[in-house]
Amino acid sequence: MATIKDVAEKVGVSVTTVSRVLNNRGYLSEDLKRRVHEAMKELNYQPNELARSLFRKKSNIIGLIIPDISHPFFGEFAKHVEEQAYKNRYKILLCNSQLDNKKELDYISMLKASQVDGIIMGSHTLDTEEFTSINLPLVTLDRQLSDSIPYVSADHYKGGVLATKLLIRKGCRKIAHISGNLKLHLLAKTRYDGFMDTIKKAGIPHVVVETDLNGFKYHEYEQIVADLFRDHPDVDGVFASSDVIAAQVLKECRRLGKKVPDDVKVIGFDGIKLGEFITPELSTIQQPIKEIAKTSVKLLIDQINGKEVQRENILPVKLLEKETT
Amino acid sequence: MATIKDVAEKVGVSVTTVSRVLNNRGYLSEDLKRRVHEAMKELNYQPNELARSLFRKKSNIIGLIIPDISHPFFGEFAKHVEEQAYKNRYKILLCNSQLDNKKELDYISMLKASQVDGIIMGSHTLDTEEFTSINLPLVTLDRQLSDSIPYVSADHYKGGVLATKLLIRKGCRKIAHISGNLKLHLLAKTRYDGFMDTIKKAGIPHVVVETDLNGFKYHEYEQIVADLFRDHPDVDGVFASSDVIAAQVLKECRRLGKKVPDDVKVIGFDGIKLGEFITPELSTIQQPIKEIAKTSVKLLIDQINGKEVQRENILPVKLLEKETT
Repeated sequence: MATIKDVAEKVGVSVTTVSRVLNNRGYLSEDLKRRVHEAMKELNYQPNELARSLFRKKSNIIGLIIPDISHPFFGEFAKHVEEQAYKNRYKILLCNSQLDNKKELDYISMLKASQVDGIIMGSHTLDTEEFTSINLPLVTLDRQLSDSIPYVSADHYKGGVLATKLLIRKGCRKIAHISGNLKLHLLAKTRYDGFMDTIKKAGIPHVVVETDLNGFKYHEYEQIVADLFRDHPDVDGVFASSDVIAAQVLKECRRLGKKVPDDVKVIGFDGIKLGEFITPELSTIQQPIKEIAKTSVKLLIDQINGKEVQRENILPVKLLEKETT
Repeated sequence: MATIKDVAEKVGVSVTTVSRVLNNRGYLSEDLKRRVHEAMKELNYQPNELARSLFRKKSNIIGLIIPDISHPFFGEFAKHVEEQAYKNRYKILLCNSQLDNKKELDYISMLKASQVDGIIMGSHTLDTEEFTSINLPLVTLDRQLSDSIPYVSADHYKGGVLATKLLIRKGCRKIAHISGNLKLHLLAKTRYDGFMDTIKKAGIPHVVVETDLNGFKYHEYEQIVADLFRDHPDVDGVFASSDVIAAQVLKECRRLGKKVPDDVKVIGFDGIKLGEFITPELSTIQQPIKEIAKTSVKLLIDQINGKEVQRENILPVKLLEKETT
């Protein structure tokens, strides 16, 4: 097996220089970086933890960038990320982006300055180039960024299919889907694709309303749901792209005197604890939040330790049939 | 006004040594520390930011220790702490203690090693001595620790009084209070005191059940609430010490066929978003979560900057009468 010394000899530089390239420390010309990486490839050299650590002063801190820690999905996600990180002696720097592009960028430079060992990115507003220039081990949630950045995601497409099929099987004749932002290139968007493919195949009338910039603004959901039932009073099935939105649908049904599930059937997405507390208990597509967190942390730490990781990590969802369908 | 130089001259040491005492850096004998502190007191010397920063390499990181980030109250609290910290260019290290004594202690030593500038402590299992040995700027949530550590808290006593008075005014004849852990010396315990003082004065039959170690175990709440109505089927008013527990009461009432608010009136505590989503909408005592977070961050940063801060910080609560009372 090739060693870092072999790589250094092949390029004609010192071991220290190769290590600096591996850890991206100090000034390094593009040409040098290219030559080192080519030599590594030719020799099939796998950097090991020791080599990576040679120049690296580890902080044992992971940056976690999420849109809103008070949103139940992200609260549960952060809890599990923290648990897994703690087990591996890592700490979590919490960055609440509020889906504000400027704040996200600002946090990324703060995280670099704090020399975090890596970033778990669960927020979405940045462009791909801004991500790829991060130069730190990175794992994204629900977002494919480039060929090199690993991501973790639930099987949103399958979830969209399961939710839609359930509403059809229960006899709904006009089904609404309240989607997240479809312009952001999020994998969550495939919930919409799953809905569309299924509903078109079944030939059932349908309507799609899109929530604005994924901003978790509760009063905005209120308006969107009210508008939906005003414009389409004959909707008898709703697939909401989050449990929080589904809870809003239940509230509006109650206000309008529509009985759930008799008059309108409702299914959410996420499987957060909130769903158990609302009445009637919410049917939903459960994301494996703990597994998503566990996988994210593992992929990040593996990268920090110089291991190769799998790029695509899609985890299964589960249909929970409760009282609203 | 006395300067650091005056203190140094009085003790007969260098300015650097006094600064080291102020910042608790390097080896310092107990005798030296005592002499410096005595001289400071005699000269009425107030350390200023510059003196404190002389030996201090600021990390601009605040440690936030809370029991459970996925609990809605702490999720909302953490969100606001992050927002306020960010405005002041501080980052948040998130420590989820799970109310595990070992994990809390472990986090405190991790936080010291990471050289955080201060700690906001919203978790509760540690003993007072363990806190006072922290030697970092500290602010606690809902807990009085010592004469020197500032704390922030909502006016829990007033909240207990308001909730109980409302149930009495609405005609309840046997009122239950589901309290948090009464053995921990938390200020939240004064919700119970407010309940007891009010209910005794009114001479109304009552029952108190205590949840176990404040552990946010949802299935445990389920059992406690089921036991309450089995043992006291004539309870017609419940004051729950959190909205999450109140939601569990509503679930159980529904299971037992008891109508809310006709048969049983229910009021919670916290004023989290969850309350708006459950039906009927939950009456509650609202804590000013954003203000609590804002005050905590301000008190901590003021201490980091060497300012004097007020020790007791009690913020007002608000009665929100919704549909369950």
